[in-house]
Amino acid sequence: MPETVPPAFVLIRPQMGENIGAAARAMWNFGLARMRLVDPRDGWPNPAAAAMASGAGRLLDAAGLYATTPEAVADATRVYATTARPRGLTKPVLTPEEAMREAAGIVAEGGRVAVLFGPERTGMENDDIALANAIVSVPVNPEFPSLNLAQCVLLMAYEWRRAAEAAEARRDEMAGATWATAGDVESLARTYEARLEETGFFFPADKAPGMKMTLRNLWSRMPLTRPDVQILHGILRHLARRGGGAG
Amino acid sequence: MPETVPPAFVLIRPQMGENIGAAARAMWNFGLARMRLVDPRDGWPNPAAAAMASGAGRLLDAAGLYATTPEAVADATRVYATTARPRGLTKPVLTPEEAMREAAGIVAEGGRVAVLFGPERTGMENDDIALANAIVSVPVNPEFPSLNLAQCVLLMAYEWRRAAEAAEARRDEMAGATWATAGDVESLARTYEARLEETGFFFPADKAPGMKMTLRNLWSRMPLTRPDVQILHGILRHLARRGGGAG
Repeated sequence: MPETVPPAFVLIRPQMGENIGAAARAMWNFGLARMRLVDPRDGWPNPAAAAMASGAGRLLDAAGLYATTPEAVADATRVYATTARPRGLTKPVLTPEEAMREAAGIVAEGGRVAVLFGPERTGMENDDIALANAIVSVPVNPEFPSLNLAQCVLLMAYEWRRAAEAAEARRDEMAGATWATAGDVESLARTYEARLEETGFFFPADKAPGMKMTLRNLWSRMPLTRPDVQILHGILRHLARRGGGAG
Repeated sequence: MPETVPPAFVLIRPQMGENIGAAARAMWNFGLARMRLVDPRDGWPNPAAAAMASGAGRLLDAAGLYATTPEAVADATRVYATTARPRGLTKPVLTPEEAMREAAGIVAEGGRVAVLFGPERTGMENDDIALANAIVSVPVNPEFPSLNLAQCVLLMAYEWRRAAEAAEARRDEMAGATWATAGDVESLARTYEARLEETGFFFPADKAPGMKMTLRNLWSRMPLTRPDVQILHGILRHLARRGGGAG
């Protein structure tokens, strides 16, 4: 298992110290501690940031300070830009959930993730967006798309924690269990269809195609484990044996 | 299709007008407009709330004012309380995502949902929590679980919008299909188990409990439609009839 490093949240040219402090609180609410600052308007350290951060002050003490965005993301293997869908730049656009789920996978494999947040009011510049591998767009009300910096940080940190916990739960829950492969499921579907076909289940003839389609859809939509597939094979064998006279 | 009414967010005895205004903004960021206030400390209307709400001021103008929490939730068919896991009260505890996903289903069927938020600092009283059908607990950092009122409202409104959009996408995708009810699935599970039991499928005896558990887990984890359930009943009847001699 490689050593894992949680995402860094990078505030680009933040203006108000209060917002930096509120962003630190929002990060720490969800257990994220790695903050980076690119050229904060009022210099650094900033007493207004410290006053607002209260319980999360140590994030500010440990924050990395950079002159430019490229320096702040130099070590990252995956960079996300939280911004409105940009015009004229072709990038994948993800929801916060999609992005942080992907990030959890990257971090688990030893990658380094950076999440960019633009300055208040003016938003992120295209030169900074160009550094990102993907855009993250929060699905806000189009009539009132006015998330502030700390709110945006809060939602991303929340989604990070959800994704990281879900990844851990999946590891725990499925420890020992095994998902069926597509091949297992395909073989199950074929076996059922063949056995039902030869015993005259698909009747009357004009309804047979619809019944087969329902059955095929059913298997392919189901999140089946290997034990599930085994017991479903077992049921068919058991019932068919009692019938067809093969037993 | 019944007329649908989005959830009401109920602020119980909120203290600072600024927080009421920030909560209104957070709701409207995600398209929610139905705010209710229970006995706000500084009276109502509140100029500080209006100043903070800016673009979301009309939520305040339309907010319902109530003397007590029971009056504020009298029309709700499902009530959620956002609070830390309570001691001594036995209630289901949901994540924001689980709660709002359930709420989207209830609203789509014409139900009325209310989400309760306690006062700043002191938190929700047990009498108010007792009104709720379920607790909603945000998965915060246990070292720093200090979400403020507007942040909590923001996360719930965000999850509401995600759930409502996902429900709409599923409706589009499954237009024409009907999901099986929990009752349908339960009846399917019972029928299979009974028929397999009487035909000696659960054998040898020491493996029977494990086989039954696998089978029960299987049905309950599957996203079954009503046609799925019908065809699965049909398969069992068909195969059993060829066997047991009942046909």
